[in-house]
Amino acid sequence: MALYVQKFGGTSVGSVERIKAVADKVKRFRDEGHQVVVVVSAMSGETNRLIDLASQINDEPTPREMDMLVSTGEQVTSSLLALALHKLGVAATSYTGGQVGIQTDSAHTKARIQRIETDDIQADLDDGQVVVVAGFQGVDDEGNITTLGRGGSDTTGVALAAALKADECQIYTDVDGVYTTDPRVCSKARRLSGITVEEMLELASLGSKVLQIRAVEFAGKYNVPLRVLSSFEDGPGTLIVAEEEEEASMEEPLISGIAFTSSEAKLTLLNTPDVPGVASKILGPIADANIEIDMIVQNVAPAGDYTDFTFTVAKNDFKQTRSILQDQVIPALGGGELRGDENIAKVSLVGVGMRSHAGVASKMFRVLADENINIRMVSTSEIKISVVIDEKQMELAVRALHTAFGLDKDSIQSE
Amino acid sequence: MALYVQKFGGTSVGSVERIKAVADKVKRFRDEGHQVVVVVSAMSGETNRLIDLASQINDEPTPREMDMLVSTGEQVTSSLLALALHKLGVAATSYTGGQVGIQTDSAHTKARIQRIETDDIQADLDDGQVVVVAGFQGVDDEGNITTLGRGGSDTTGVALAAALKADECQIYTDVDGVYTTDPRVCSKARRLSGITVEEMLELASLGSKVLQIRAVEFAGKYNVPLRVLSSFEDGPGTLIVAEEEEEASMEEPLISGIAFTSSEAKLTLLNTPDVPGVASKILGPIADANIEIDMIVQNVAPAGDYTDFTFTVAKNDFKQTRSILQDQVIPALGGGELRGDENIAKVSLVGVGMRSHAGVASKMFRVLADENINIRMVSTSEIKISVVIDEKQMELAVRALHTAFGLDKDSIQSE
Repeated sequence: MALYVQKFGGTSVGSVERIKAVADKVKRFRDEGHQVVVVVSAMSGETNRLIDLASQINDEPTPREMDMLVSTGEQVTSSLLALALHKLGVAATSYTGGQVGIQTDSAHTKARIQRIETDDIQADLDDGQVVVVAGFQGVDDEGNITTLGRGGSDTTGVALAAALKADECQIYTDVDGVYTTDPRVCSKARRLSGITVEEMLELASLGSKVLQIRAVEFAGKYNVPLRVLSSFEDGPGTLIVAEEEEEASMEEPLISGIAFTSSEAKLTLLNTPDVPGVASKILGPIADANIEIDMIVQNVAPAGDYTDFTFTVAKNDFKQTRSILQDQVIPALGGGELRGDENIAKVSLVGVGMRSHAGVASKMFRVLADENINIRMVSTSEIKISVVIDEKQMELAVRALHTAFGLDKDSIQSE
Repeated sequence: MALYVQKFGGTSVGSVERIKAVADKVKRFRDEGHQVVVVVSAMSGETNRLIDLASQINDEPTPREMDMLVSTGEQVTSSLLALALHKLGVAATSYTGGQVGIQTDSAHTKARIQRIETDDIQADLDDGQVVVVAGFQGVDDEGNITTLGRGGSDTTGVALAAALKADECQIYTDVDGVYTTDPRVCSKARRLSGITVEEMLELASLGSKVLQIRAVEFAGKYNVPLRVLSSFEDGPGTLIVAEEEEEASMEEPLISGIAFTSSEAKLTLLNTPDVPGVASKILGPIADANIEIDMIVQNVAPAGDYTDFTFTVAKNDFKQTRSILQDQVIPALGGGELRGDENIAKVSLVGVGMRSHAGVASKMFRVLADENINIRMVSTSEIKISVVIDEKQMELAVRALHTAFGLDKDSIQSE
């Protein structure tokens, strides 16, 4: 007998028929003798319907009231799923986040879980009940309803799994696992049977949006085995584990996956006076405007008096960032020439294997050169190499790297 | 400065525009310096939408889960109204029934309020906030969400008014008050400026469905001044007060209103052996089948050995009741002849004035006789006389009585 926490997203519970199918799936686990806690999202479309109602009433809605409003979406799904389980003869009880003891801070619309009181859930499980929990929500110390931000149901699932010491947290979604890269861009993309938390974090933050990044962090921190599966078809999915649990082997692939995005734009300040604190003088005003910066590269010019400073921001922050640099930063620094490029893409190789293997970067650059792809910017971490290239060449780069690093479906697999 | 509890029903909050109009109305009271607690229903149609979803999943839905489900409707409205008030610059906070301390028993879908903790509401009011409460709901001692049954938002409003010792509980609805009878049947029907709780109870239970009967009982018990008003147009509405507060005067009309219904059917057992306990032997099996009985009349036959027993049930319980009488009751009693009539109507005169005036019944019978309306059954209480007549003659009877008892618009009014 194992204890599973199973999370079903909005598409997986998007209709009466889908909710019944989820109940069937949960029943199969119960019939095998397992204990099950189910975390559900709002039915797809419901959260947007509620937000739309609010926006017709108040264009600057108060966060506390928005949480009060949108948290109803998950509550509806949780009771409907409990009713579907009852119809199948499965004992089940639904709870809101607050009822089930999910305590958060008071940061409405983006609250963080502080503690979970599991006594009541454990008592229900021991009593043979399936516990159905409305995802994405909790209560603060004052009893106000809070939400964890979009996609927060994943976080609810992982947090409950950690608190209950569940054997596995299963995230059911509309894809059947984590892929080496986006199958829509590279037809040879392959589902990974396993991946480390670290790799998953790099892939998630870079564009392979399967799981909410906070949920993966949470799973890593509390050592919760996390599995991504399809709610529409049976299959083993992808298991995400803390690295230390993974058996390192010579067959381990260098690279686990390739992430890419064309949603960023690049800004460069050329010939900036190289004075102390130049980076903070450039980035300070941008951070003050709540603009997030991704890659940063700084080169000191040979002469040593001037520096070139390049960074990327989201494309829709490009114009505002350019204005801040032109109007505030350059005058403050006493010089510098501004260049911007909106037509870029970022392509990243991710894999814990590259730590112990030299030459991943050089091989990457050679593969791109062979395809006549010019590299505009590079940044690296221990398990990731990212390059910025021309947006038009993004898909070509992804496919060439996918083949060159042995990720294609028809390559020998380590699974 | 007064403290008002204002309840707005489903039609009054049925759209974004209506919710904004409610916010305008609440703001006017705040601008006059009053404290306001608002109780809201679900947007019209929403509760039915949720029930329909549930019925597609489970044809015998569990009451606890239904409460979890449908209580979201009022929660949505409460947050939307708070957002609408914020938009107008009015400080407001929304609460679920549970958050605001409405404790009920555990009778899901028809829970009864046991106590209300008003400290938090009072603190918000003293802080200048409008308190918006999701109607129709509470929590039991275990923290499960309960609902008070359909129309329960009225009860929430009155209970909050009682607990807060509010100056008035205002029930905003789609009619502008309580009428002497249904204006759709009698064009001369007239809005009453005042009515006693007792009269209102008789009128409500007989078909003038303006307020939930439990709310009126509650108002009477806790001496809460209750006013029914239109949420669509301004006006004084109808004030419902405990009788002792009303100044009895000679001008007080005999009759306050005329209620009527054609939703009942009549059953008669003729020539039943008149043995002890015959009434319970007849009605016991019917009560066991959860069929509600309204009027009961028993006549002992002149000879003394036999009795005629007549009662009314809802029309859609008629066939089942007839079967129970035929198959169980008559064999058990050892005799009796069954008659049934589905084509009846009940017309009732209601008024505390009739207590001190003899002759109301005889006048009523004479008016009906003048119209050639045959009376099939009579029952009376201190402030009500009900007659059962042929369904086809119902409207004629209502109009004739309305005129005869001086209720018509063009009569001299005591207002």
